[in-house]
Amino acid sequence: MALDSTASGLFPIAPTPFQPDGRIDVASVDTLMERYLAAGATGVTVLGIMGEAPKLEPEESLDIAARFVKGMAGLPVIVGVSAPGFAAMRSLSRAVMDKGAAGVMIAPVPSLRTDDQIVTYYRQAIEAIGDDVPFVIQDYPLTLSVQMTPGVIRRIVQEHPSCVMLKHEDWPGLEKISTLRRYQEDGSLRPLSILTGNGGMFLDFEMERGADGAMTGYAFPEMLADVVRLQKEGAREAAHDLFDAHLPLLRYEQQQGVGLAVRKYVLMRRGFIASDAQRKPGAALTAAARAEVDYLLLRLARKDARAGL
Amino acid sequence: MALDSTASGLFPIAPTPFQPDGRIDVASVDTLMERYLAAGATGVTVLGIMGEAPKLEPEESLDIAARFVKGMAGLPVIVGVSAPGFAAMRSLSRAVMDKGAAGVMIAPVPSLRTDDQIVTYYRQAIEAIGDDVPFVIQDYPLTLSVQMTPGVIRRIVQEHPSCVMLKHEDWPGLEKISTLRRYQEDGSLRPLSILTGNGGMFLDFEMERGADGAMTGYAFPEMLADVVRLQKEGAREAAHDLFDAHLPLLRYEQQQGVGLAVRKYVLMRRGFIASDAQRKPGAALTAAARAEVDYLLLRLARKDARAGL
Amino acid sequence: MALDSTASGLFPIAPTPFQPDGRIDVASVDTLMERYLAAGATGVTVLGIMGEAPKLEPEESLDIAARFVKGMAGLPVIVGVSAPGFAAMRSLSRAVMDKGAAGVMIAPVPSLRTDDQIVTYYRQAIEAIGDDVPFVIQDYPLTLSVQMTPGVIRRIVQEHPSCVMLKHEDWPGLEKISTLRRYQEDGSLRPLSILTGNGGMFLDFEMERGADGAMTGYAFPEMLADVVRLQKEGAREAAHDLFDAHLPLLRYEQQQGVGLAVRKYVLMRRGFIASDAQRKPGAALTAAARAEVDYLLLRLARKDARAGL
Amino acid sequence: MALDSTASGLFPIAPTPFQPDGRIDVASVDTLMERYLAAGATGVTVLGIMGEAPKLEPEESLDIAARFVKGMAGLPVIVGVSAPGFAAMRSLSRAVMDKGAAGVMIAPVPSLRTDDQIVTYYRQAIEAIGDDVPFVIQDYPLTLSVQMTPGVIRRIVQEHPSCVMLKHEDWPGLEKISTLRRYQEDGSLRPLSILTGNGGMFLDFEMERGADGAMTGYAFPEMLADVVRLQKEGAREAAHDLFDAHLPLLRYEQQQGVGLAVRKYVLMRRGFIASDAQRKPGAALTAAARAEVDYLLLRLARKDARAGL
Repeated sequence: MALDSTASGLFPIAPTPFQPDGRIDVASVDTLMERYLAAGATGVTVLGIMGEAPKLEPEESLDIAARFVKGMAGLPVIVGVSAPGFAAMRSLSRAVMDKGAAGVMIAPVPSLRTDDQIVTYYRQAIEAIGDDVPFVIQDYPLTLSVQMTPGVIRRIVQEHPSCVMLKHEDWPGLEKISTLRRYQEDGSLRPLSILTGNGGMFLDFEMERGADGAMTGYAFPEMLADVVRLQKEGAREAAHDLFDAHLPLLRYEQQQGVGLAVRKYVLMRRGFIASDAQRKPGAALTAAARAEVDYLLLRLARKDARAGL
Repeated sequence: MALDSTASGLFPIAPTPFQPDGRIDVASVDTLMERYLAAGATGVTVLGIMGEAPKLEPEESLDIAARFVKGMAGLPVIVGVSAPGFAAMRSLSRAVMDKGAAGVMIAPVPSLRTDDQIVTYYRQAIEAIGDDVPFVIQDYPLTLSVQMTPGVIRRIVQEHPSCVMLKHEDWPGLEKISTLRRYQEDGSLRPLSILTGNGGMFLDFEMERGADGAMTGYAFPEMLADVVRLQKEGAREAAHDLFDAHLPLLRYEQQQGVGLAVRKYVLMRRGFIASDAQRKPGAALTAAARAEVDYLLLRLARKDARAGL
Repeated sequence: MALDSTASGLFPIAPTPFQPDGRIDVASVDTLMERYLAAGATGVTVLGIMGEAPKLEPEESLDIAARFVKGMAGLPVIVGVSAPGFAAMRSLSRAVMDKGAAGVMIAPVPSLRTDDQIVTYYRQAIEAIGDDVPFVIQDYPLTLSVQMTPGVIRRIVQEHPSCVMLKHEDWPGLEKISTLRRYQEDGSLRPLSILTGNGGMFLDFEMERGADGAMTGYAFPEMLADVVRLQKEGAREAAHDLFDAHLPLLRYEQQQGVGLAVRKYVLMRRGFIASDAQRKPGAALTAAARAEVDYLLLRLARKDARAGL
Repeated sequence: MALDSTASGLFPIAPTPFQPDGRIDVASVDTLMERYLAAGATGVTVLGIMGEAPKLEPEESLDIAARFVKGMAGLPVIVGVSAPGFAAMRSLSRAVMDKGAAGVMIAPVPSLRTDDQIVTYYRQAIEAIGDDVPFVIQDYPLTLSVQMTPGVIRRIVQEHPSCVMLKHEDWPGLEKISTLRRYQEDGSLRPLSILTGNGGMFLDFEMERGADGAMTGYAFPEMLADVVRLQKEGAREAAHDLFDAHLPLLRYEQQQGVGLAVRKYVLMRRGFIASDAQRKPGAALTAAARAEVDYLLLRLARKDARAGL
């Protein structure tokens, strides 16, 4: 099932579960998928920045991608293939598509600066992976230090029919969504799925600006799926009420560098994965931080019973 | 009244109020001060990054600093004096101290990289402004791209008796506060006031980690002062309840580039300033953004009556 | 005498001469001008990055600009007015134009990334200084970390009739000159003076690609003026012979961070200025470095008698 | 033969020769080695930044490393293993050491800022590859944007007995060599081979400051080997004469982004490789640039007959 521009809903960014000794915890991969499906996921994204992809051997990466393809009940699996070189990007792309992935996600290399450099980079990337592979643009200036204007995104989309989705995580980014949707209204931009990241920090309003859904890894995918659904149903107040209840924890998880440790800790406490271990090198939570997360969970449980442990 | 390391509470980062035609709105400066005092401010910081300082003529900067000194009822006024050159930093520092400022705040220039470069920069800055001027280190990597470890901060503090405060806005930064406080416990770091910035995004836990207060410009200084006070009183739940109620709006305000426009808009709606105009060049809020802020205020008013307009 | 797009030849980047105690050495300013005129300069640029401008008080900056206007025999004086804020840029621009400057030079602020951000920045700058002030775009990615494509430069030039010159110091940059000249041939770019910087490292070929001259501070302005002249006369071999003779020293001077110390040391040894002192903070040459420069001068003197001391 | 801290002389940075259709040109690999040996190389470095390593499939990388090990007559082969993730770094390191490599070269990832981050990164890297693999620190701030002080380099060297060499390409960097050598004199730094890169731009003086040799890819390895040898013999004037003769071309080759195209073009003209093709994506020289290189070769041939074609 190939990814296309009608994709919407929730594509969780999946972490890679490890055992404390560093081996991949395949049983937890399966549990994770069950929970994602139960939460209402409409797809999943693997081997992204938060999936500890650079710590995996090539065969491990392929195995994980294949396991997700098999376990996600036919839903589309997007695989992150960003790499400093096009050879590695091509190899991984072809391999995961052979395994049944629905598409790939490509982030720009951090050295890109001018509009033309960015457009050229995507041209070279698509030449490398082939124009038959559906791909997602990852627009994440905070981490990647590459700034794409709406106009640059439009140039890339218009040049490549295989571009079907934008993972939007610019910050601030609400006006960017509005501008892209305006481009579509005036006919200068083809249909394009926009899923938003940034840990979900602005999902409440991103949906109102025209996003199709969320692609992020917050440890309560149920909330993300619900907010997306509620906003689509027009239940604005309910969407904001639920979002606001989660915001204190969501905000805590959205810390560069320690965010993954928080996320894995909460996922472990919720039974999504067996251990919050990261493969080395990884940052562990201090006792103080764990206590803070526990406190936030306790407070959250008063408003959302699913946080009760 | 000179700033010293016992400073605590709330030092709002004051915006500079302008009239729609770009002139400074001195009447609003006075209103702003009244409201700050009513909110429980224990000092104020002017001419910071959010004070549109680079758009002011030198005399305007001095006039504003002087007006704040006069109107803040004897509370300490900190003046931002960061500049690309030490001549401008020295001139402004000496001039505002003559006007009665309590101290100055110095951010590192963005080109600094190694630990030694940062330490040397502060050495040269203090040589320029004089070691009799109490100063604040501004540690804001997200905007300044300079990363100071706790060890580097300790070196600067220990080298300069006139260093009395850290404006902490590293992100993530909770462990940094804990580390600095540990340094003080083990005797390797002198007493130092730590006020936190970052728009207030982590103020709830920063206080629990050992911060002395807040130095940021969120448009509800009352909330910041109350959270600081409640945490000091040990009223943890009440502090978090109040903080969480404000977090949706606070998070919206904390957007690089548009944050000041949101802040001025809310301050205007609340009657703190007469106009939300920024001096050119400045980003205006779109109609969609204004409607989003209005909606957040409406929702907030249900939990904090002070948001009722 | 206003700067216009026919400017050519050599505009030395003037250092600011200091006495060992840090005061400005006005006598050396006069000597410097005499030597520049004798060397064949057709103009001069003051208060640039290498002029230690950020260490000067505002009145000092104005005094220096005025002294150069008076002493350069009616030749155009360009003043660097780059500043983090438009207020300072406007004040300095208006003041130096009142003193008789021929134009100003504006570098982009380092935070600019996208093409539109750069174009917008120059629009705001020109709105601030006024469209009656002839200005020079400084394109120096190595130091400023802002990358302007030829297309972006064209947009700025076409939008602002008061843009009369490009200080070209991209690296590599030869193709950029060729592209801009091609734009002029195809009618899409107005006439524009292109003077090259980068310490002169590629002046030999820059002239062959279409540059109008040099704007840099190499301590042998005579060589720069001669290479420009020889290339215009078609004496290619002679131009390269002279350039190559100087390249070992020129390369040594072109070191980020210590380059100014080398330059001032050579200028002092050549009698252009009385002292090689930099105002604090400044990097001094080590004994080893001084000995290396002396050795390079000795070797150069065998090929260019003007290096004999 | 394991690399150790006595390494000296010339380790050329080998380009990867390609056929015009993008396949690796193994015959040219062999020719290249013959020429390196004839030029006086004492080792070789492969799969570095200029070796187009990111464009190679993993098996291709291994094949090239193995071919160099076999063809370099027992001289040490260093393999670049820098990678965004430690899994890839470990795999490649173990594989090339199995094939007979003498050691590996590791550059820091561009995101590192503080001294501690850099030291920690090397600690994690050595944990990944194993402390039995001799390694080289690559210190190249201009391209990598990571700044290592001499003190940081000392910390890494002292912590890891397997660190045997510094590839020094800081700019400016002469004082850094002197400082490191002073550390060794005062006993605070173990013996360490220092080979210099930066295209060779300062090799003349780097040898006088205490470098052990060169590790760079200038298209005339004979000159690099000769300058190293002459300086070691105390023939200072002869060393500088030869260096200066090559400087105009060397400077032309040392242009970020187009340098590799110049280098391959000259190597092709000199018969070291059959084609100057780069694997896609790669920058080709314009006709104007090729003509400039031809002209520089012609001029060089008057002083160094080896440039005659």
